[in-house]
Amino acid sequence: MKKINLYDANGFGEKTFKNFLVHDSPYFKIINFNFKAGQELPVHSHDIEGEVSLAVLEGEGEFLGKDGTTLPARAGDVLISQISEPHGLKAKTDLRLLVTIAPPI
Amino acid sequence: MKKINLYDANGFGEKTFKNFLVHDSPYFKIINFNFKAGQELPVHSHDIEGEVSLAVLEGEGEFLGKDGTTLPARAGDVLISQISEPHGLKAKTDLRLLVTIAPPI
Repeated sequence: MKKINLYDANGFGEKTFKNFLVHDSPYFKIINFNFKAGQELPVHSHDIEGEVSLAVLEGEGEFLGKDGTTLPARAGDVLISQISEPHGLKAKTDLRLLVTIAPPI
Repeated sequence: MKKINLYDANGFGEKTFKNFLVHDSPYFKIINFNFKAGQELPVHSHDIEGEVSLAVLEGEGEFLGKDGTTLPARAGDVLISQISEPHGLKAKTDLRLLVTIAPPI
């Protein structure tokens, strides 16, 4: 068992988002991304099997998808995507995101 | 891609915690548990391979472990446990928890 507090472990960066590896195992990889308003995780995808969840802990923004599509993102939102589907996020306010990838990549 | 808002999808119950299945796939199972103050997910374990993450979205309480051990639980905390290790949670205030199990059970 291990416990990490995301608010203690990871802050915000002026130039780009800050990411913090919470956990990596044969089962899943968990990463916390913190975005200042305006910062972005560009749309990306990997041609492998598996899924990723993106949970918004705080803040507002947009999930980014294929061909410029967007979905509003706010606290309490959980987006589920295939790893092979294009996905990303752009923050409108400071935003904390918890990402889980299974199996880990 | 699918998006669910946990605050819209799941409330609180007077008699026991309310759980909501966010996602179930061959890769992971994601469940939201909402606890009113005093409610509890009793310590439990399953004798199988895999790991579970417990992320506290809101509220305060205690993570429960083997032989009556406890760890403080607060917003931003992520607990990682083997599925085979005893784990649980007791809420001191109303508390929202996001649980991810990989592989799904």
